[in-house]
Amino acid sequence: MSFAIIVHGGAGQLASEDRAAACANGCLAAARLGHAILAGGGSALDAVQAACSALEDDPLFNAGTGSCLNADGEVEMDAAIMEGTSLRAGGVGAVRSVKNPIFLARLVLERSPHVLLVGSGAERFARENGVDPHPSSLLVTERALERWRMERAKLIEPKPGTVGAVAIDGAGRVAAATSTGGTSGKAAGRVGDSPLLGSGLYADDRAGAVSATGDGEAIMRVVLSKVVSDRMAAGESASAATAAAIRELDRVGGQGGVIAVDRRGGLGFALNAPRMSRASIDASGREASGYDP
Amino acid sequence: MSFAIIVHGGAGQLASEDRAAACANGCLAAARLGHAILAGGGSALDAVQAACSALEDDPLFNAGTGSCLNADGEVEMDAAIMEGTSLRAGGVGAVRSVKNPIFLARLVLERSPHVLLVGSGAERFARENGVDPHPSSLLVTERALERWRMERAKLIEPKPGTVGAVAIDGAGRVAAATSTGGTSGKAAGRVGDSPLLGSGLYADDRAGAVSATGDGEAIMRVVLSKVVSDRMAAGESASAATAAAIRELDRVGGQGGVIAVDRRGGLGFALNAPRMSRASIDASGREASGYDP
Repeated sequence: MSFAIIVHGGAGQLASEDRAAACANGCLAAARLGHAILAGGGSALDAVQAACSALEDDPLFNAGTGSCLNADGEVEMDAAIMEGTSLRAGGVGAVRSVKNPIFLARLVLERSPHVLLVGSGAERFARENGVDPHPSSLLVTERALERWRMERAKLIEPKPGTVGAVAIDGAGRVAAATSTGGTSGKAAGRVGDSPLLGSGLYADDRAGAVSATGDGEAIMRVVLSKVVSDRMAAGESASAATAAAIRELDRVGGQGGVIAVDRRGGLGFALNAPRMSRASIDASGREASGYDP
Repeated sequence: MSFAIIVHGGAGQLASEDRAAACANGCLAAARLGHAILAGGGSALDAVQAACSALEDDPLFNAGTGSCLNADGEVEMDAAIMEGTSLRAGGVGAVRSVKNPIFLARLVLERSPHVLLVGSGAERFARENGVDPHPSSLLVTERALERWRMERAKLIEPKPGTVGAVAIDGAGRVAAATSTGGTSGKAAGRVGDSPLLGSGLYADDRAGAVSATGDGEAIMRVVLSKVVSDRMAAGESASAATAAAIRELDRVGGQGGVIAVDRRGGLGFALNAPRMSRASIDASGREASGYDP
């Protein structure tokens, strides 16, 4: 069995060609990181975590460092990770003082009897499991602060954004990961689709793995990632399944994008948003990246 | 079009025949309350909210008053409500000082741009929308406290529990509602399946409406309610869809139950747990209640 990975850096109306290209490049760097793990015999779970973590650390993306700010001007992040062999998963919602929410999600998967921890309870779980506190202020970039000021002044529209990765490893195991600062200007305590199994992500070795991005509330209402997964379980390719599923968002007036890998190692993506930055390395080792539909 | 409703009071190993019978009676009272709303021309959304609210106020059930306690000995509740015409939904997770979490979920549906609010952010939304603070201590029953003490002493096993209702109204609209105190002894900040669209509940006029109960983490990992909904969308009856979907829980070693109404007004339930208290009033007005499989 050959291995493959695809990552995205969020869907929406990107600011400029330069920025869009930079985001696609950031996605490619993350895909290469995950691919190296797969090439070394590592698991899909480790690969998607590493790719997601790299995107969290890249201030270009709305996840980890560079997260957008909520209505209070605070960072609150969501993330989740899932593996497709036994459907184990971990997620965190509305967490603040953590450098890499995807690492915390992995800890929930490994060490908690629960699947989803939120708010102060999730932070306490982090401390109890040796995750160092990371001051929120270190997560806030100049750009995020400027965007928040302009949104407050109604000069620009708030926007969503997420990063995500899906992969299949040499053993045929799939995994998915998502991480986000959420929709800018969101209410405190808002949890979006990203940490919710079936909505922001899904992984099942019998189908494939999926990660979604875009209007979180719309994605939740149609349970978008499960729709893609079910189509792949029925035999559709990742490409066909993502193309068909993205139309579900039209029903609820949402915009977004979705990436997937099917159980045969095929990669696919689809979007009904103007753009989605992404990058992939397929089973033959071929690299691709871009941002236009 | 005729109307119908089915409610459940949680799945699991109930303590005694007396208690099981009392729970079934409580479910029947809640079903009658929802049915009266439907009979008066009210919406499925109002009916499931009223039924759920009645079960929250009944200290027999693990929701609202009578909620079980988490590892810290605190009440933290989850609830959600969804309507199937335009897929609008509202949910709250890990909330403490609210008498009726399902009412707060309805407010999220009506007044928030978001679908899911958790923790202190959800409480703030409650206060901003005129919901009176309700001291947690008023939610804690003697029985919940005694159960918590015995669990701490390892004399009994922690158990999950949820209440839920689904209905179809005279206009053919469906809705679903769930509410819970969660799994007893859970970590602070744990959010279960109950407030998550596709997991604890789902409603879609093209399919029907679903509410699940049982091991929340297992339900989340298989996105149980969406599985039932998809089967009904493909033409299966509520009865057939629930019976088929409950087997998904076996894959992840979970126990639970599920209730559903299909778009033709047919009612169904299924469980792989030892018991699930429930009651229904079908399209011909016939009442039923019980707790054995």
